[in-house]
Amino acid sequence: MSTPARIGLLGRGTVGGAFEGLISERAPAVEAATGRHPEIAGVLRRSEGDFERILADSEIVVELIGGTDPARDYVLRALHEGRHVVTANKQLIAQHGDELFAAAREAGVQVRFEAAVAGVVPVIRVIQESLAATRISKVFGIVNGTTNFILTEMAASGASYEDALARAQDLGYAEADPTEDVNGADAAAKMAILARLAFHSPIRLDDVTYEGIEEIQPEDIAYAKELGLSLKLLGVAERVEGGLSVRVFPCFLYGGHPLAPVEGPFNAVMVEAPAITEITMSGPGAGGVETATAVLGDVVSILSGEAPVHEPSEQLEIVSDIASAFYLHLEVADRPGVLARIADVLGRNQVSVRSVVQRGLGDDARLVMVMHEGPEARFRAALDEIAGLDFLRAKPRAIRVIEEEFV
Amino acid sequence: MSTPARIGLLGRGTVGGAFEGLISERAPAVEAATGRHPEIAGVLRRSEGDFERILADSEIVVELIGGTDPARDYVLRALHEGRHVVTANKQLIAQHGDELFAAAREAGVQVRFEAAVAGVVPVIRVIQESLAATRISKVFGIVNGTTNFILTEMAASGASYEDALARAQDLGYAEADPTEDVNGADAAAKMAILARLAFHSPIRLDDVTYEGIEEIQPEDIAYAKELGLSLKLLGVAERVEGGLSVRVFPCFLYGGHPLAPVEGPFNAVMVEAPAITEITMSGPGAGGVETATAVLGDVVSILSGEAPVHEPSEQLEIVSDIASAFYLHLEVADRPGVLARIADVLGRNQVSVRSVVQRGLGDDARLVMVMHEGPEARFRAALDEIAGLDFLRAKPRAIRVIEEEFV
Repeated sequence: MSTPARIGLLGRGTVGGAFEGLISERAPAVEAATGRHPEIAGVLRRSEGDFERILADSEIVVELIGGTDPARDYVLRALHEGRHVVTANKQLIAQHGDELFAAAREAGVQVRFEAAVAGVVPVIRVIQESLAATRISKVFGIVNGTTNFILTEMAASGASYEDALARAQDLGYAEADPTEDVNGADAAAKMAILARLAFHSPIRLDDVTYEGIEEIQPEDIAYAKELGLSLKLLGVAERVEGGLSVRVFPCFLYGGHPLAPVEGPFNAVMVEAPAITEITMSGPGAGGVETATAVLGDVVSILSGEAPVHEPSEQLEIVSDIASAFYLHLEVADRPGVLARIADVLGRNQVSVRSVVQRGLGDDARLVMVMHEGPEARFRAALDEIAGLDFLRAKPRAIRVIEEEFV
Repeated sequence: MSTPARIGLLGRGTVGGAFEGLISERAPAVEAATGRHPEIAGVLRRSEGDFERILADSEIVVELIGGTDPARDYVLRALHEGRHVVTANKQLIAQHGDELFAAAREAGVQVRFEAAVAGVVPVIRVIQESLAATRISKVFGIVNGTTNFILTEMAASGASYEDALARAQDLGYAEADPTEDVNGADAAAKMAILARLAFHSPIRLDDVTYEGIEEIQPEDIAYAKELGLSLKLLGVAERVEGGLSVRVFPCFLYGGHPLAPVEGPFNAVMVEAPAITEITMSGPGAGGVETATAVLGDVVSILSGEAPVHEPSEQLEIVSDIASAFYLHLEVADRPGVLARIADVLGRNQVSVRSVVQRGLGDDARLVMVMHEGPEARFRAALDEIAGLDFLRAKPRAIRVIEEEFV
């Protein structure tokens, strides 16, 4: 049996607690992927725990304290002592990245920070690994969930900025002091990190200009809606003539833009390069277990060191009768009782109808129905019966429908 | 100086040619990321080249022949001889993955295949690395660009399936014999690969049930539009009670669904798990240089073996005057000549107007304008002038607009 992989955990707030839970729940999966069984070597909290003892006992240090002091000291100590570090701390990386990366190179260890930008959206890995040798021209997106929630709320309900912010605070999407989020500073730190990685250039936080959303009026959003526009707080880092530009600003997008449908607390990042056209990635930008999952992904990468193992570890059955919703297109004789007969067949097979459009067609009629989700076998049984009805003028056509609607 | 990284290239069609070009163009970037300078050791074409000699000269073999014969023999030989392999071959991985992975494990080398599914969209890396220890519940999406192009075309123009297919063939989005794409078999092979990786379970190609789009009628799409639905060919692999389901089928999506806006030859994949909610990734599903970029990302990962280096290798200037388009909201006195005065200021500053909405408001009026993209300094100069006009009733509000509209 291999030695356990011992992880020192600094900080045990929402994300730290979720990470501890994930480690215990997913330890067998980590071991299947990496050959190493992960264990928490110790937890440093504000009021308890001994950093030196935890450091001595750990092979990987996970920093989830936030802020730069004392996080920077702890992380530097860990790197100097030859420990790999995983952090979710955007300020630490944006302000002290160069110092930390140099320490990691010197010690021959890794520092990973996927969770520092866009939560579980794997933008750091994609830029650094998939696109490491690609000449990226632009990285941009929605990297602050608080402001995206507020703007979504203002657009949906016509609420004022103040009311939308209060609602975000009630729901836990904004902090009691939301300044750094709403004035664009949080997004600026994240864009400094993305720009550095995308352009291999030492971008400092001061290089990023930013504006926030505090002055947005509901009527701007209302007018813009008439023009087919939706408002987002965008971070944009791009190559321009003469160098780079890294900015954060509120911005309208036309309806066809891939970022236009990103709503609520979600984040999304697009990467453009001549060789890839564009890649868009989106997902939850925060949340305890989501952020902890990004941290765990980094831990797994450190432990595997090599490529994935590709060994099947589960034997799962293939199931064929899946719950599905269907669209059903019928051409029928246009006479009384037809709809009732069809509804009867559906009802007896426990297929529930969500919407119906009927239209005349000379002596015939077309019935287009959309069903609610249910076991496919029941719908198929109903369809077989319907296909045999004497008033049918053509073979019925059935197509699946995805019923869920999103954010 | 480190030894060059020698790459044997099998196959030189569109993707192979693009890969050769990328290697010569991006060699310095590969070296910056990995410490190794890549070189093509030899190219095997149908009519020339000696596989044994190329194998002997290479440390990584890139297989871009396609199909299973002779690709399987070449790749097995390479793995047995201790060479890393990168392939873009979905049939090879879907049909012979287990055999290849076992050979790679035995030899202690890597086999990577990002380009085999969804082109440059990094779904393989994200599932295998970011989410290696996450219990994925569902992977689904649009993994065939040919059919998505055809369906987009039918929806946009009301074209028949046959006409849309002919147009796809004209534009190079469909092959002369499109059978494998339009009947769902191509998507089925990709879903078998994704399901295997997501669920760590030995899914065979035969386990995937599939339907194609050949029988879709334009009127189905037209009716569905009235109901707010758009049609996609979806691949869905999910945990269900009793095991797994892996299927490919045409399917309607409601407008709010993240996959609904994915149009033309683009691919998109969503991954769901309780710990991540959902991640959506989209981008071009094919194309020579896009696919070659995915192959190059795999080569870089093999060469780095370790984590990314994080060493800035470029010194780029921060540029502040960026071309931008603006929305401009003005409250003005409602009297003749106002619009002309504003238009004059904009014109003199070479700011071009894209759209205007004017509305009365008692004695005042509101003007909401959207500009075309231009240098920000010019717009700011115009804005300063406008702010000083005597008929202005409130401070002007300017917000950036992203002008480009996508696929």
